[in-house]
Amino acid sequence: MYDIAIIGTGPAGISAAITSKIRNKDIVLLGSKDLSAKLAKAHRIDNYPGLPQVSGADFAKKLTEQIEGLGIEITEKQVSAVYSMGEYFSLQAGEDMIEARTVIVASGVVQGKALPGEDKFLGRGVSYCATCDARLYKGKTVAVLGYSDDSAEEAEFLSEIVEKVIYVPMNKNLPAERDNIEIVREKPVEVIGDKKVSALKTDSGEYEAACVFILRDAVAPDKLIPGVETDGPHIKVDLMMKTNIAGLYACGDIAGKPYQYVKAAGQGNIAALSAVGRLTELAKK
Amino acid sequence: MYDIAIIGTGPAGISAAITSKIRNKDIVLLGSKDLSAKLAKAHRIDNYPGLPQVSGADFAKKLTEQIEGLGIEITEKQVSAVYSMGEYFSLQAGEDMIEARTVIVASGVVQGKALPGEDKFLGRGVSYCATCDARLYKGKTVAVLGYSDDSAEEAEFLSEIVEKVIYVPMNKNLPAERDNIEIVREKPVEVIGDKKVSALKTDSGEYEAACVFILRDAVAPDKLIPGVETDGPHIKVDLMMKTNIAGLYACGDIAGKPYQYVKAAGQGNIAALSAVGRLTELAKK
Repeated sequence: MYDIAIIGTGPAGISAAITSKIRNKDIVLLGSKDLSAKLAKAHRIDNYPGLPQVSGADFAKKLTEQIEGLGIEITEKQVSAVYSMGEYFSLQAGEDMIEARTVIVASGVVQGKALPGEDKFLGRGVSYCATCDARLYKGKTVAVLGYSDDSAEEAEFLSEIVEKVIYVPMNKNLPAERDNIEIVREKPVEVIGDKKVSALKTDSGEYEAACVFILRDAVAPDKLIPGVETDGPHIKVDLMMKTNIAGLYACGDIAGKPYQYVKAAGQGNIAALSAVGRLTELAKK
Repeated sequence: MYDIAIIGTGPAGISAAITSKIRNKDIVLLGSKDLSAKLAKAHRIDNYPGLPQVSGADFAKKLTEQIEGLGIEITEKQVSAVYSMGEYFSLQAGEDMIEARTVIVASGVVQGKALPGEDKFLGRGVSYCATCDARLYKGKTVAVLGYSDDSAEEAEFLSEIVEKVIYVPMNKNLPAERDNIEIVREKPVEVIGDKKVSALKTDSGEYEAACVFILRDAVAPDKLIPGVETDGPHIKVDLMMKTNIAGLYACGDIAGKPYQYVKAAGQGNIAALSAVGRLTELAKK
């Protein structure tokens, strides 16, 4: 049982991890060793106080060195669900369950609207996690909407398990050429089906598929955390980064605009101190 | 008429200035070229993301270089009052009035309670600004409660104008030895008087004084900004750092706990972007 589980390795999550660690808490930091695809691509950040005109890559390098210096490790797992169990939380990360007394969500914001049918078929043929659900579709055809940087890689992994992958690239990355990966450069418009998903509809055709994997950089918060109060694509927080769920905090882009690095880092710090306060309370019980 | 007046040169004010400048706003940044006494004294900051184990002095140096690189100047004036004039603000800074369409307050938090009599006699023998009010007490005896780092210097300046200075040191700094400066190492307990201040009462005596200068690093927010909504020693803000006064934003320690550098920097960024939004609205009118 960890004291604090931190979901996300952008500036908000890293900041939360640094302050949590300095406050001697037992933490698990879930994300990517590359920290954040968005950060890595930032050409130049002009308004991060203390680091004038830093490139995203240099900033990420500094953050990595800083957490390494503090002995903070990054666990490369994608969290697909966070369940509040009263005085602790269960996090589903691939096939593992992780338990923690408090959770800080810093997983970034989902840009854009859900695809028609996406919400309806979630768990019945719509999946956000190839690693989690690939084996359910052994011998079947699946579609992959590749929004995130590692979608192409995920599609390759899927192709080793399922019969066929229809890959719809939503960015520049493409999976390696394979006999059972078909690249479809069309605009996805709907997930269709009856009780379960039967096909992906695009602007110029329909593709039979037992599952549509929608691989974005971030998952919509109410899908990630059942019961969390949201405001559009954001989790509702107060000034202390508290959500409506006791012990659950949000910070960074997922906690609202502006989408700015130093704002994210500041909120990560607040969230960590709020979690520390909660742990003190829990310890008194 | 400035677009944005920023009061305070700690991490919140500097962050607000950086983002405001990058958004091409015409700003005035009011504070100290030494940035912040609190920051300068910070031995080591362990949880500022991107600057591991930075000393307060080094952090201040980096911030100074950054604002210089952006062409941001610091105006060394103490703001004693901020008046909302509807669609702009008037700031009293010493003898000058500064006008700005929006104001960001990042002046830090006042630690501790007001002295008995302080509120009652404010403007009638209680002053927070030696530079502003020294000449009113030419030929008279005044008391100085030296809480801030530059209080001793202020007392020296006062001694050149008034008849006599009773100096009560509240930190380690002392003014230069002068015939008309008396050092009184006692605990101030009350400002006394009838219609005006007549004396400073301490735990072991009473000192006649026409004025009691209470020189803290920060002024209580409701004294600085008539009409602003407060919560204890803090200005009430929402997540966008908005106060109850349109066009007025607060950030950093004055906007509430935790008192942390990266939190302050993050809030400064948000306040600046909120001010930029307000300016866009005003321009449409």
